[in-house]
Amino acid sequence: MERGGSSFDGDAAAAAEEEAALREPLLRRRTLNTTSQIAIVGSNICPIESLDYEIVENDLYKEDWRSRKKVQIFQYIILKWTLALLIGLATGLVGFFNNIAVENIAGFKLLLTSNLMLKDKYQEAFAVYAGCNLILAAAAAALCAYVAPAAAGSGIPEVKAYLNGVDAYSILAPSTLFVKIFGSIGGVSAGFVLGKEGPMVHTGACIANLLGQGGSHKYRLTCTWLRYFKNDRDRRDMITCGAAAGVAAAFRAPVGGVLFALEEAASWWRSALLWRTFFTTAVVAVVLRALIEYCRSGKCGLFGKGGLIMFDVSSSVTTYSTPDLIAVILLGVLGGLLGALYNFLLDKILRYYSFINERGAPFKILLTVTISLLTSCCSFGLPWLAKCTPCPPDLGHQCPTIGRSGNFKSFQCPPGHYNDLASLFLNTNDDAIRNLFSGGTESEFYISTLFIFFFAVYALGLVTYGIAVPSGLFIPVILAGSSFGRLVGTLLGPISSLDKGLFAVLGAASFLGGTMRMTVSVCVILLELTNDLLMLPLVMLVLLISKSVADSFNKGVYDQIVKMKGLPYLEAHAEPYMRNLVARDVVSGPLITFSSVEKVGTIVQALTLTGHNGFPVINEPPFSAAPELCGLVLRSHLLVVLKGKRFTKDRVLTGASEVFRRFGPFDFAKAGLGKGLKFEDLDISEEETEMYVDLHPITNRSPYSVVETMSLAKAAVLFRELGLRHLCVVPKTPGRPPIVGILTRHDFMPEHILGLFPHCKRH
Amino acid sequence: MERGGSSFDGDAAAAAEEEAALREPLLRRRTLNTTSQIAIVGSNICPIESLDYEIVENDLYKEDWRSRKKVQIFQYIILKWTLALLIGLATGLVGFFNNIAVENIAGFKLLLTSNLMLKDKYQEAFAVYAGCNLILAAAAAALCAYVAPAAAGSGIPEVKAYLNGVDAYSILAPSTLFVKIFGSIGGVSAGFVLGKEGPMVHTGACIANLLGQGGSHKYRLTCTWLRYFKNDRDRRDMITCGAAAGVAAAFRAPVGGVLFALEEAASWWRSALLWRTFFTTAVVAVVLRALIEYCRSGKCGLFGKGGLIMFDVSSSVTTYSTPDLIAVILLGVLGGLLGALYNFLLDKILRYYSFINERGAPFKILLTVTISLLTSCCSFGLPWLAKCTPCPPDLGHQCPTIGRSGNFKSFQCPPGHYNDLASLFLNTNDDAIRNLFSGGTESEFYISTLFIFFFAVYALGLVTYGIAVPSGLFIPVILAGSSFGRLVGTLLGPISSLDKGLFAVLGAASFLGGTMRMTVSVCVILLELTNDLLMLPLVMLVLLISKSVADSFNKGVYDQIVKMKGLPYLEAHAEPYMRNLVARDVVSGPLITFSSVEKVGTIVQALTLTGHNGFPVINEPPFSAAPELCGLVLRSHLLVVLKGKRFTKDRVLTGASEVFRRFGPFDFAKAGLGKGLKFEDLDISEEETEMYVDLHPITNRSPYSVVETMSLAKAAVLFRELGLRHLCVVPKTPGRPPIVGILTRHDFMPEHILGLFPHCKRH
Repeated sequence: MERGGSSFDGDAAAAAEEEAALREPLLRRRTLNTTSQIAIVGSNICPIESLDYEIVENDLYKEDWRSRKKVQIFQYIILKWTLALLIGLATGLVGFFNNIAVENIAGFKLLLTSNLMLKDKYQEAFAVYAGCNLILAAAAAALCAYVAPAAAGSGIPEVKAYLNGVDAYSILAPSTLFVKIFGSIGGVSAGFVLGKEGPMVHTGACIANLLGQGGSHKYRLTCTWLRYFKNDRDRRDMITCGAAAGVAAAFRAPVGGVLFALEEAASWWRSALLWRTFFTTAVVAVVLRALIEYCRSGKCGLFGKGGLIMFDVSSSVTTYSTPDLIAVILLGVLGGLLGALYNFLLDKILRYYSFINERGAPFKILLTVTISLLTSCCSFGLPWLAKCTPCPPDLGHQCPTIGRSGNFKSFQCPPGHYNDLASLFLNTNDDAIRNLFSGGTESEFYISTLFIFFFAVYALGLVTYGIAVPSGLFIPVILAGSSFGRLVGTLLGPISSLDKGLFAVLGAASFLGGTMRMTVSVCVILLELTNDLLMLPLVMLVLLISKSVADSFNKGVYDQIVKMKGLPYLEAHAEPYMRNLVARDVVSGPLITFSSVEKVGTIVQALTLTGHNGFPVINEPPFSAAPELCGLVLRSHLLVVLKGKRFTKDRVLTGASEVFRRFGPFDFAKAGLGKGLKFEDLDISEEETEMYVDLHPITNRSPYSVVETMSLAKAAVLFRELGLRHLCVVPKTPGRPPIVGILTRHDFMPEHILGLFPHCKRH
Repeated sequence: MERGGSSFDGDAAAAAEEEAALREPLLRRRTLNTTSQIAIVGSNICPIESLDYEIVENDLYKEDWRSRKKVQIFQYIILKWTLALLIGLATGLVGFFNNIAVENIAGFKLLLTSNLMLKDKYQEAFAVYAGCNLILAAAAAALCAYVAPAAAGSGIPEVKAYLNGVDAYSILAPSTLFVKIFGSIGGVSAGFVLGKEGPMVHTGACIANLLGQGGSHKYRLTCTWLRYFKNDRDRRDMITCGAAAGVAAAFRAPVGGVLFALEEAASWWRSALLWRTFFTTAVVAVVLRALIEYCRSGKCGLFGKGGLIMFDVSSSVTTYSTPDLIAVILLGVLGGLLGALYNFLLDKILRYYSFINERGAPFKILLTVTISLLTSCCSFGLPWLAKCTPCPPDLGHQCPTIGRSGNFKSFQCPPGHYNDLASLFLNTNDDAIRNLFSGGTESEFYISTLFIFFFAVYALGLVTYGIAVPSGLFIPVILAGSSFGRLVGTLLGPISSLDKGLFAVLGAASFLGGTMRMTVSVCVILLELTNDLLMLPLVMLVLLISKSVADSFNKGVYDQIVKMKGLPYLEAHAEPYMRNLVARDVVSGPLITFSSVEKVGTIVQALTLTGHNGFPVINEPPFSAAPELCGLVLRSHLLVVLKGKRFTKDRVLTGASEVFRRFGPFDFAKAGLGKGLKFEDLDISEEETEMYVDLHPITNRSPYSVVETMSLAKAAVLFRELGLRHLCVVPKTPGRPPIVGILTRHDFMPEHILGLFPHCKRH
């Protein structure tokens, strides 16, 4: 690892050098998985860094805070709401643009294909269909592979990790945002079995990050009050809003968006945040509504009813009997089993794909193109297996469907007949779901059709996720779930009289519960999607069962991906074996401390040799009677002070006023990952290294600390609940140096602890 | 204050003796407010106590934890889910029972009255109406005043305080549960302008507390695995589920219940809890559905459609124009203003009522009876002001209404006419709301009618809340809001074409936002109540505006009541002035510490002299090289050890095994407030006071601690986020005693801090 370049929380870099043997397995695994999914810049593995959610209460902060006038606080509040408004507006617009683009591109493709089919030009139709898919897929993959590798996949796991306190390089960068939007349009239009919902969440988070940067030095977009946002705390809030706005825009589900952010995305939650995310998603809902109203008159090309999903189930089910309940319970159990299997297989496939993807961009594109061809073959080939059905006479001109979407595709069938499998395959995913959810269409789909479609979609969804294209998991899971639900409903027709469309909704719920393990948010999203409150108790029942069943096999799919990517995610609860350990047990690596008035050379050396991001500062005589812990100083703050060069010849206190004269609080504001001052920017002369610098003004005087004999479980809870980056471990007995070590996120990872204490696992 | 009897967190009791002068204003205020609302037993003020949410990691706990077998952990999980199931079942049943009882009693009363009215016996009708109301009100008030004074009011503030970590005596006791159920039935049937929703939340919490007691020694309901629940942590989770179940049962809104618990009730939240509350509310929904299905065939007396509120608005509004939006924004602003005014007036009235209520039970009953008479006069008298309207010809036999409920009461009108004001007043509150929400009835209500009704309900709601009857705030606020919304809608008829029923819903939302300041949960509850998803964006808009407007005037009504009752509620954020203080600044009172092997007499003396609930234990020579902090021991654990009398003649370590032999972990399990071992239960002889006891095994070796120079703001965040009861303050410089003091909830209260540092406020 290069000097100064801190891999995952800095301290780990040093620790890794010291205890390489011990942690080899962990690091190796992390590296392996990281390369494939997380950005590769040149040939270096990209940095993962912890975020500073703790308020650094040093003299500068306090002075800055004291000098804030009422009007500034008011400006800050106004600005925060304005940002939430802007995030909502932008996410709504992007979501709508995404929909229009997909509907038009995919619609044009499908129209072209079906016109050729009507003229019996089957081979040409396939060539056009597969060709369009191929081009779109290759374009999306190329964007992804060359411009922003971080944009591949769903993005929800990365957002989740960010909100847990782990920043990965370029995960929320503008380039990622760009690729996410256009890559997602390409991927969805290319007919893959993937969704635009996960990418929308990531897009929302990227937009929030961009807006929440607190201005930009580079583009001279700075002003006094914007700097108050230049910290990880406020950025976290914004990104939570962005994630909620993403779901709201993807599903047109404002309340579901808030609950998604709460249940799945965020690791910390405050009541104020609920309020702000709610505002953001309300803005999204209003924007979408206005735009849909605008498009109603046909101004948006092929964008019609097919756009933003809203499946009006409106089944009139009000009563259900015991056999119905048994059918629903069965659906829940099977959904849980198949969901857990989905997660298991996805993990295996992703691990296999990572070997292909890490060979470089051409291989990524090749893989994508292969999957695209496979998908095209399935979509176009499988419908030949279905037989043609005469149109129900009561439908009139609705069957066979003319135009691009609809329930009754004619495909190869003679006039007055339709191919039920083609109605599912040769449609956009949204339309396929709408067809499956539709009520009152008992006999539209044959059992064999549903079986083939379910099997194909389940398999295609698995092999599609890992390719280098922005790809959400919601739609594949809903597709598989709803076809499975309808299949079960049709099979159980003799014993249950529930509507088949309702069965499809329940099947989707059971699969969502089985893979993603979300409950309340899925419930509300489905509610908002289907606009049917009466089925709520059944959806709740199915979710409860499928989640319980699946939880006994493995973790939720997003947790699994977070783990596989090697992102050090802190769980909310402490592991049981941690109760047998104390904080001292996991402290590792050599501790580097500074004296409160330190020689410049010593600091430079420490910054060169280690990648630590926090250093304890010790008050020593003559500045105190005995050595005592003064606080913690951050690497970024040290760099600013060294760059400013206010050194003294002698070892004296310069006091805070000197620092205030030289620096504004804006200089110490936290920049985004990879953007702040770097060690290489310093230019310290030989003479200056012999001078002194007073660290008091920039030292956080109130770092959280635990006694070395503190139970590790309790230290972990403290670390997690307060969102810390560094936790000081202080000695229990007097007469020893005032600090034992520093705990970081890494030290609480089960891999690290079980590496040190292999016997723990048995407990 | 009596010895041993700890008022609010014990430490406060001692502190109060020491610094009486300083804290006089605070204590006086608390006492004043406490007496009136919180239980009075004999002539003593009842204890308020902090809850122990922190896991006490002493040797006993660790040993107990190590010895837990897999099967026990499995039992624990099963049991936890079973309890959630039982809470859901019980709350659903109680909620349904409540509804049936109210519908039958109130229905019978209304039927009797309207029959007399039909015979033109107006005076007799009033006598019957007012008489029934009076008897029901007096019965409810008598129950409340004599059996369980804690059952008066909504109960939501108390549940909220409990979940924040403050237990008030008898607030969740079985007697309170009993009175809450029957008092609420009486109160609602008596025609008061109050709701059963708040009491249902309290009822759910009481049920959860009862079930979560972890068995009972008294009734010999103990078993091995039930004891794992005998702690405040698990009880907190159960009570959160109970509160959610209460809302779910009151409104038939399972998702709304979960969100209510999350947004308004709970102070700590985990993902697992979301999952469990969701399960509980799903059970409630299923129970209610089954019972309603059962009653559909008329087996439940007068309980008909009028029961559990479900207002089917189903307006077909899909588009709205700019004037509509302006009308809605206006409604939001006015709702916010009137909501803030409501809170302001309610606070004044409650403070005035507390002087009456604290004079004793007869005065409470007198007040209730007075308000009952006033309400009866309004309900029966005001409809005479309205003129009779001929029935719309297209309604047929629906007008005038025959039977007890309906939109068109004939009251004093000739046949074929109805009195619109009587349709609102002489109905149950649920039916009045249903009438106001009903769509497509543009011209049913006159402007004057709506104005009179709004004004009467607004005023009656205010004067009703403080009486000694279980009374919820939701219904009065919804009543006032919906009549106000309909009024505004009718007035703005020329510019807005929205349905008047929709205006009523929006008005209710604006008032709920303005008084309770809830957002997402109100939104979802209204959604589930009205079963109309299309109005969601409008409801969100109204809520956002009304909450923002009202927030600039005062706090939410529940926060206000919590504060008024003197419950020490910890806010989630630290106050700004806390950044200028350090932990040492607010440490107060004399510190009493124990040696790790302490003389029995010293402990007895300490327990006698102070009401402290936690004592620091110091390791001293010869047990350590220098004095060091060993940990923290709880009062309740000391009492158990003293009761067990395993003392030694000499000052020696007995070790944990001795304690394990004598005590099971069940002996140390935390009993409910007022139920555990008391100091008076001890019987220590003169000789025994000279003996020693080893405190090591019962000492929590890992108490959370902060350095004395830690910023008070950060200490407060630590205290709040981790749900602590005691926070040790340790010295910064070596060579001093190993502990400076202990911070409790009380020390973080603004009143306490501003009492010590009056200048802080200016910042």
